[in-house]
Amino acid sequence: MTTIQDAAKLSQIRDLALAPRGHEKIDWALAHMPILRQLQEEFSQTRPFAGMRIGVCLHIEAKTACLALAVQAAGAEVAIAASNPLSTQDDVVAALVERGIVAFAKRGVNEEEFARQIDQVLDFNPQALIDDGADLSSKLHLHRPEQANQIIGGCEETTTGITRLSAMARSGELRYPMMAVNDAYCKHLFDNRYGTGQSAWEGIIRATNLSVAGSTAVIVGYGFVGKGLAMRARGLGAKVIVTEVNPVRALEAVMDGFEVMPIVEAARLGDFFVTATGNVAVIDEDALAVMKDGAILTNAGHFDVEISKPALFRLSLHKKKVREHVEQYSMKDGRSLYLLAEGRLVNLICADGHPVEVMDLTFAMQFLGLEYVIRHRLEPGLHSMPVELDMRVAKMRLSAWGMKLDELTPEQSAYLNSWK
Amino acid sequence: MTTIQDAAKLSQIRDLALAPRGHEKIDWALAHMPILRQLQEEFSQTRPFAGMRIGVCLHIEAKTACLALAVQAAGAEVAIAASNPLSTQDDVVAALVERGIVAFAKRGVNEEEFARQIDQVLDFNPQALIDDGADLSSKLHLHRPEQANQIIGGCEETTTGITRLSAMARSGELRYPMMAVNDAYCKHLFDNRYGTGQSAWEGIIRATNLSVAGSTAVIVGYGFVGKGLAMRARGLGAKVIVTEVNPVRALEAVMDGFEVMPIVEAARLGDFFVTATGNVAVIDEDALAVMKDGAILTNAGHFDVEISKPALFRLSLHKKKVREHVEQYSMKDGRSLYLLAEGRLVNLICADGHPVEVMDLTFAMQFLGLEYVIRHRLEPGLHSMPVELDMRVAKMRLSAWGMKLDELTPEQSAYLNSWK
Amino acid sequence: MTTIQDAAKLSQIRDLALAPRGHEKIDWALAHMPILRQLQEEFSQTRPFAGMRIGVCLHIEAKTACLALAVQAAGAEVAIAASNPLSTQDDVVAALVERGIVAFAKRGVNEEEFARQIDQVLDFNPQALIDDGADLSSKLHLHRPEQANQIIGGCEETTTGITRLSAMARSGELRYPMMAVNDAYCKHLFDNRYGTGQSAWEGIIRATNLSVAGSTAVIVGYGFVGKGLAMRARGLGAKVIVTEVNPVRALEAVMDGFEVMPIVEAARLGDFFVTATGNVAVIDEDALAVMKDGAILTNAGHFDVEISKPALFRLSLHKKKVREHVEQYSMKDGRSLYLLAEGRLVNLICADGHPVEVMDLTFAMQFLGLEYVIRHRLEPGLHSMPVELDMRVAKMRLSAWGMKLDELTPEQSAYLNSWK
Amino acid sequence: MTTIQDAAKLSQIRDLALAPRGHEKIDWALAHMPILRQLQEEFSQTRPFAGMRIGVCLHIEAKTACLALAVQAAGAEVAIAASNPLSTQDDVVAALVERGIVAFAKRGVNEEEFARQIDQVLDFNPQALIDDGADLSSKLHLHRPEQANQIIGGCEETTTGITRLSAMARSGELRYPMMAVNDAYCKHLFDNRYGTGQSAWEGIIRATNLSVAGSTAVIVGYGFVGKGLAMRARGLGAKVIVTEVNPVRALEAVMDGFEVMPIVEAARLGDFFVTATGNVAVIDEDALAVMKDGAILTNAGHFDVEISKPALFRLSLHKKKVREHVEQYSMKDGRSLYLLAEGRLVNLICADGHPVEVMDLTFAMQFLGLEYVIRHRLEPGLHSMPVELDMRVAKMRLSAWGMKLDELTPEQSAYLNSWK
Repeated sequence: MTTIQDAAKLSQIRDLALAPRGHEKIDWALAHMPILRQLQEEFSQTRPFAGMRIGVCLHIEAKTACLALAVQAAGAEVAIAASNPLSTQDDVVAALVERGIVAFAKRGVNEEEFARQIDQVLDFNPQALIDDGADLSSKLHLHRPEQANQIIGGCEETTTGITRLSAMARSGELRYPMMAVNDAYCKHLFDNRYGTGQSAWEGIIRATNLSVAGSTAVIVGYGFVGKGLAMRARGLGAKVIVTEVNPVRALEAVMDGFEVMPIVEAARLGDFFVTATGNVAVIDEDALAVMKDGAILTNAGHFDVEISKPALFRLSLHKKKVREHVEQYSMKDGRSLYLLAEGRLVNLICADGHPVEVMDLTFAMQFLGLEYVIRHRLEPGLHSMPVELDMRVAKMRLSAWGMKLDELTPEQSAYLNSWK
Repeated sequence: MTTIQDAAKLSQIRDLALAPRGHEKIDWALAHMPILRQLQEEFSQTRPFAGMRIGVCLHIEAKTACLALAVQAAGAEVAIAASNPLSTQDDVVAALVERGIVAFAKRGVNEEEFARQIDQVLDFNPQALIDDGADLSSKLHLHRPEQANQIIGGCEETTTGITRLSAMARSGELRYPMMAVNDAYCKHLFDNRYGTGQSAWEGIIRATNLSVAGSTAVIVGYGFVGKGLAMRARGLGAKVIVTEVNPVRALEAVMDGFEVMPIVEAARLGDFFVTATGNVAVIDEDALAVMKDGAILTNAGHFDVEISKPALFRLSLHKKKVREHVEQYSMKDGRSLYLLAEGRLVNLICADGHPVEVMDLTFAMQFLGLEYVIRHRLEPGLHSMPVELDMRVAKMRLSAWGMKLDELTPEQSAYLNSWK
Repeated sequence: MTTIQDAAKLSQIRDLALAPRGHEKIDWALAHMPILRQLQEEFSQTRPFAGMRIGVCLHIEAKTACLALAVQAAGAEVAIAASNPLSTQDDVVAALVERGIVAFAKRGVNEEEFARQIDQVLDFNPQALIDDGADLSSKLHLHRPEQANQIIGGCEETTTGITRLSAMARSGELRYPMMAVNDAYCKHLFDNRYGTGQSAWEGIIRATNLSVAGSTAVIVGYGFVGKGLAMRARGLGAKVIVTEVNPVRALEAVMDGFEVMPIVEAARLGDFFVTATGNVAVIDEDALAVMKDGAILTNAGHFDVEISKPALFRLSLHKKKVREHVEQYSMKDGRSLYLLAEGRLVNLICADGHPVEVMDLTFAMQFLGLEYVIRHRLEPGLHSMPVELDMRVAKMRLSAWGMKLDELTPEQSAYLNSWK
Repeated sequence: MTTIQDAAKLSQIRDLALAPRGHEKIDWALAHMPILRQLQEEFSQTRPFAGMRIGVCLHIEAKTACLALAVQAAGAEVAIAASNPLSTQDDVVAALVERGIVAFAKRGVNEEEFARQIDQVLDFNPQALIDDGADLSSKLHLHRPEQANQIIGGCEETTTGITRLSAMARSGELRYPMMAVNDAYCKHLFDNRYGTGQSAWEGIIRATNLSVAGSTAVIVGYGFVGKGLAMRARGLGAKVIVTEVNPVRALEAVMDGFEVMPIVEAARLGDFFVTATGNVAVIDEDALAVMKDGAILTNAGHFDVEISKPALFRLSLHKKKVREHVEQYSMKDGRSLYLLAEGRLVNLICADGHPVEVMDLTFAMQFLGLEYVIRHRLEPGLHSMPVELDMRVAKMRLSAWGMKLDELTPEQSAYLNSWK
């Protein structure tokens, strides 16, 4: 077991003295995560990860800290790195270290140091992984293939990470089993929609102090994240335009009462742009060239590639910070465009990320998914979460609220199974 | 080819003289079904059903008539029966016969005659089936197994029908290939949600002239139909309570801002009850016993079994029609409960069924599904619709509106397929 | 007292034999009008209208019938004419006559006979008036000024009627006191918004069987009726465009998330157009000229002047009925436009008018307003309803639902009255 | 004219060195206040306040700073105090001083010093007032009545301030004319609803990181602020309960689809409580006693009296800060209740106050209202804003967006004025 002294010695963080406020934040989060708390209690008895080293790569703030601590309580030694240097909360990192977790994370480090922190988690020789965006798995497969054999399995929570893992699995390159937690109902139905929907708009409002009501919001992508963004934009009083490449999703957007058009047309109309595609350059030079003076550009997808920063640079004379997390790009044609959070995840940079209760669902699935992949010693590849885990977690959430459901009577079950 | 004279001779309908108004209705519908119209044009060239006899069982009104006529235009001889005797529109039946389709359908016939009409379609010796609720397939497997061999395949559009076919497939009893059209995106995302959502509430308002705003609506079941009912109830100003047996769906309802509770608790609070479970007796004696005086009971599921009529009879002294499609049950304890449409599909009995444009999607999928199952000579069993058909139909719909989508650039496609 | 025999003799109606279904409708409505029922009970004791003749001009259907019967129960002899020949329900008229009310109304009579029916109510020598659109008052002032002296007062429920009465009052021509019932909170906040919102869309859906979801709805006018229409259009899944002449209302529409533009621009985009301005030719030749093929034109305002029928005639070759209440105008340029209900009130022609519970509020205000104007013998002119009547009616409605409110504590009342 | 050197000498503020970030904030705000900018440009030519001293009491942040600067640009010398010590932004105060405004404001000062700052503005001998909550007027009338004669007039923007001024006016004590800016359409329709709606929920989310979706929000009061809070709570996915003392407003809440009940019943159900009544102790001991463990208490009304802090103290053992702006009250019965922002205005303490564009409307009305009251030398008392000013401001806003309205044709104007 890593002692607290060891953790402090091994870790590379901003300042251990920040820990008190980090503990405060963690306590608040845990108080609002009844599912994770209950699973942690159960697993601290059964200790399914006893004696294992587990490597974690997540946005480090209070809620992810609760997951790391739950994994620790289930018997593991845990090392953690940030999945994004701008979203790291240094006080939470300090508190984790004070609770015996080895951490390699500092807010605002450069790309190089960020890459090194991922390496440090791999140096820890993990036997299982909790990944976000497939950063650990990607680096491991590319640069440390020799470590793949010792990985029993892991889990991945983002759409982007699963897109990457699934490319690896298709080409036969994925060397250990990974659970596609994002595809579980209790993840993508809730986290992607209600989580990002609320927190991305909170981040935008916090950064700009502008009115969503009366504005035109352009949502790029109508997957579950895009659906959440569009739903909340409307709930806050915006007119919403959706852009898509998938005709079924586009049709859904139309029937939901939104306008659908190509991005270059939407570009002329939007006040706020929010990207959520998991793809690259979905707002590119042609769209940037025709936007209104004063347009606000934000990203809610995993990587900072959705709004083309190269294109922004090409079209602008200079940029300047005008508010916390708001950069003004002064365009060659005289317009100003404003980029939030440098095009990184707006909800994690400009706000505190997803609401606690939503992450309780997600992390319960991560926790159970990891336990499942380890207990069952699955084949290498990308695996779906058994639907029973969804049902279990959903029931725990309802029951934490004191809500009750109906149950099928024997007559009803029989009816569903009969065709005569 | 069935001549119009043959059709008139073979058919058993209310009155051929009603045809003019039926034609009017069909023309209006077809004018608002651009996808089906375009497919019909294409298939009337290629004639994929040339020389085949096709048996159809659907709610017979203007939109289903358009599907039957499209199938005919693609080369088939068509015989049609109603999937519910109360939803049949006699003028539309007459118009179909005048256009050469053999019909066995009269509004309001009794159970026995209704069953005979299904038989008459099977007597027609169909080689392919378009089914609704699996009525044709169920009768054929139970009572005319010898006909199964000559069936090349068919398609089924309802959740209920697929539940039944899937029970048949699981037990190895399904003798020919059936396309599960309901499971296609362009069916269940749209028809079940936006179609039933609008038309069920239209039926309820038309039957009662009561205010949805200010009322409490209890939606029993939060599948796609239930989601549509809940969404529209809110859109019309109701407070909405959802009841469910599935915890993930229940959780989704909570996060959508609805109340969730067991039906016996919701029963005390509701003004309107709408069932959409595909199951039996979901409103049973215990719920009926505690409802408010004046509660309105309606069903939006396939069969009239969701609200237990036996339980209503047991608890009541007598019933009486008080408005078109509204029966007052005078309960032994002095309350009155009102049942709409005898517990049958409220949108088809009290209104004109789904909106035309929604059925355009559904029937385009049926049409393409039938063509697919016949062209590919699939194995016996329940088959999924290829997602390409979804994409094709969604694109046709968007293009009929003149809407354009973005397309993936080569760079973007590559990005999605890379993990490095 | 008018006996039933007298009523039958004096009345001019379609057919007394239709009465049974009319009674059924009236009973259903009254069962859902707890406020009016309670006031009727009270006033049938106190008989404030004892010995008076009261002339009524309203859309005659079940709910207005309940008001006429309540006025009768309060002691009056009542004569009634229709405020629109297309909205009259002949079975309800017959039932009224069977209950002793003198009626001059037949569905579908021509303009001349319609005008004569108004005259017949004035021939009845009323001493008080319940008016709708100011038809009785307008005719009386123009053609029978000698009768003005015997009018103690009356009440008027529509925006349009109040616009007219207020023009009369401004020019000093209004000869007796009229209560502006429309301006009372319990009228315009509810009837105009929730009443018209629901019933107009029901009428449109019933007439067309088209999908509101996915469509673009243009709402002309953003007063309380327009607000209700826009809110429900969105609730049913439409994109909504608002047109206005008043900048404050236009700004409210923008902040509510709707698009605002001039009618000639909106004309190019709309699938459904609904007018609610109380003004003339708000959809005129310039707008009609650019609408999409297939656009649906409907009016929810009092008179059939909002959509310019002269302009429609000028631009079209011919018109033809294609569904109940739907006329196709074949335009000279090849487009088809569809006019519902001949441009008259769509909710009353194509559906059953406002929901019962909403009219319970409105008619409670009418009933109390009439009692007030008669008891207080007010000066000639247009009078506001005392806010106490609003509070009383709202309380009765809440209490009929079993709802309770908070009450100000003495400390709180004192706080609100202090400034130190 | 106050020089910047004078301003710096006279002012009492935190730290002039904070000014750069204050300027940044002010520039951002002004860039999004097109109406105020345009009026400022106009009045900097006409200088309607030339040579006057104007006292201002407002929440001091970037947007109010823009108003103060606009008043200065119109010719006045301006002294400003905070209307709440917790909402003051010290960097903005510093920037104001650097632009020549005399300021008496520091974030977080105690009650005594806060009172003294108001006095210091009155020591400045203002001839006109811009007030918020009637703090300046109240102190002046109570303690410095001799100064009343030199006040030409002023304006007041809050509901609470107007309640107080109107109590003063009713008792004949108000000594100079005040414009009731809050009652103007362009204020209360927008600021109270869309402004507070968005910003209060942003503050709550920022302070708690909890999910609004899936929660039960209790909105205390359904005036315009309460309507905005309820609308946005729903828009963010909450179930909403409204409590009221006014039956008409309660009825409106019901018809808007919200639940209505007394606060002591709602207390058992709520996760979030937001008060918006302008009254005292609307959440009192009886409600606090039955709330769920973990309930969040917030206020969106002017004073910190709506949630009874005395009652909280009586029922609790101790309190403790658990997150920025979140105090945990540990109740004697073991529950924890959380009070945000010490019961003060949540949107100003926990977030940046109303969105910029909404305050642009409000401050344009303030600016025009002040100019009006000074130009017209009105009688003492509380005055309504002329509706023309509303129309002017609304038009400016629409025109800043590039939106156009329809205009009444002569035929339409005539129609509205005719009754024949």
